[in-house]
Amino acid sequence: MFGVTILGNNSAVPAFSRHPTAQIVTIHDQLLLIDCGEGTQMQIARYKIRRSRIKHIFISHLHGDHYFGLIGLISSMCLIGREEKLFIHGPRKLKDIIDIQLSAADTMVPFAIEFNALDENGLVVNEPKFSVECFATQHRVECRGFIVREKKKPRKINKDKINQYPIPAAFYDRLKDGEDYTTKDGQVIKNELVTIPNVPARSYAYSSDTIFDHNVANHVKDVNLLYHEATYLKDMTENATKRFHSTTHQAGFIAKEAKVDKLIIGHFSSKYEDLSPFLQETKEVFQNTHLAIEGSTHIV
Amino acid sequence: MFGVTILGNNSAVPAFSRHPTAQIVTIHDQLLLIDCGEGTQMQIARYKIRRSRIKHIFISHLHGDHYFGLIGLISSMCLIGREEKLFIHGPRKLKDIIDIQLSAADTMVPFAIEFNALDENGLVVNEPKFSVECFATQHRVECRGFIVREKKKPRKINKDKINQYPIPAAFYDRLKDGEDYTTKDGQVIKNELVTIPNVPARSYAYSSDTIFDHNVANHVKDVNLLYHEATYLKDMTENATKRFHSTTHQAGFIAKEAKVDKLIIGHFSSKYEDLSPFLQETKEVFQNTHLAIEGSTHIV
Repeated sequence: MFGVTILGNNSAVPAFSRHPTAQIVTIHDQLLLIDCGEGTQMQIARYKIRRSRIKHIFISHLHGDHYFGLIGLISSMCLIGREEKLFIHGPRKLKDIIDIQLSAADTMVPFAIEFNALDENGLVVNEPKFSVECFATQHRVECRGFIVREKKKPRKINKDKINQYPIPAAFYDRLKDGEDYTTKDGQVIKNELVTIPNVPARSYAYSSDTIFDHNVANHVKDVNLLYHEATYLKDMTENATKRFHSTTHQAGFIAKEAKVDKLIIGHFSSKYEDLSPFLQETKEVFQNTHLAIEGSTHIV
Repeated sequence: MFGVTILGNNSAVPAFSRHPTAQIVTIHDQLLLIDCGEGTQMQIARYKIRRSRIKHIFISHLHGDHYFGLIGLISSMCLIGREEKLFIHGPRKLKDIIDIQLSAADTMVPFAIEFNALDENGLVVNEPKFSVECFATQHRVECRGFIVREKKKPRKINKDKINQYPIPAAFYDRLKDGEDYTTKDGQVIKNELVTIPNVPARSYAYSSDTIFDHNVANHVKDVNLLYHEATYLKDMTENATKRFHSTTHQAGFIAKEAKVDKLIIGHFSSKYEDLSPFLQETKEVFQNTHLAIEGSTHIV
């Protein structure tokens, strides 16, 4: 399973029962939390997500609608006695903000917190089955998007063919990694003869808050699923630019330019109650678009 | 109108759709916010409370379930362009916590914030129609309760009697303040002859988080309405004491000792789903007890 569950889809001031930005990425047996607006811990409970399985938290930038729920989540993890190490990846100043609040409450933190300040673009997490990279976006404050990539999956042994060749089972793992086998008498058995490709590695990108920017398309090139903000409808392009945000059409253009398979749009402005024009407008540019409805899960 | 609307009634970790502590006190034309747990701004919207009418915010202590929603509320006030001055009364360290977060977001604050560090017991707010005092409670960190008192109301002119005496209308305001009137020829007209008492001034006390402590009863003596925490049922007395909290019976004892008219209990532990035993147990000690149900309003 590799999917994205939306916990909050609103920008700035919560409105129309929509919550500020947060999402859970499920990848194999891990949960990643990307952004954590106020109320995220309640949304986690509401959608029956297992808080204890969150190992990595990523914060894109220090506007409150993207992180004001973090300290509450950490405090709850303390109160329920979490023991597993927690990794938090975010802007450098975030550490002081967490520390001052834990210290004021005299909170006993029963688990290790490893804080990783995101100062540069590049690799952030390197787990056995996936990696996470970050890239800078252009916003009013320092801001980063994230790309979660499955690692290339090992090839599979072709059960119909493998028995036709004298290859010891001990060599199968190396076959899965793509190696050829050389017999004792020097005969080379090409890997392709005895293995088949696995399903391709997939990727998900979240570009967070950003002005319309072609660099984003370069960063998220060819990902399977892209979450791009669409704070405003297209008639608000000027305002979007002024506020370093994007419109429906602009989100669609980036998805098209980056040749992604599927686009999610979210981070809707509090001025809109009805979200259907967002979908309609973005589809004018990029057909395979979906709204980041809270509680919805999008398979990568 | 002088009443208390409950926005959150839970302690520590949010549970069973209950929110962390927050309440709105409506007194004449003002709204006071007392404590502000995570999600309070959403609860304010949910119960259609006019955020703009909040002039004073009181934070009892720096455990997250009492203040993690404050920065989100302030940020939203900034985004919607509030202009009126906001007064925040709370522990001294709270100011740094607010400042570091506003600064990290590069937030433009379009209104004045006056921060009032609560270092001592006593008068906190002195408005024309009411005052607010604070008193220290015994908790794991520095903590304060608050008492909101209406000011003594002027007497009313007795319309049936006033015309029987030669008192100029210009003197009526002084009659309302309780003065006697002396005529030109030295005749004293006693105030009681021409005025009647107004409704008595009422008072509301919120004792926040506290261990069972008779000092609280002294502080809240004779208030009309008391909100006392009851984090645990009575069989958890030992645990309550260890954690500097109170039980149902202990809340009832304080209400009884202080001779209050009515008691609200709240700050329920996340371990309890059913709240009815809280009401039942507390009533064993103090009959006029009510649960702090979210969305309920209690007239003082």
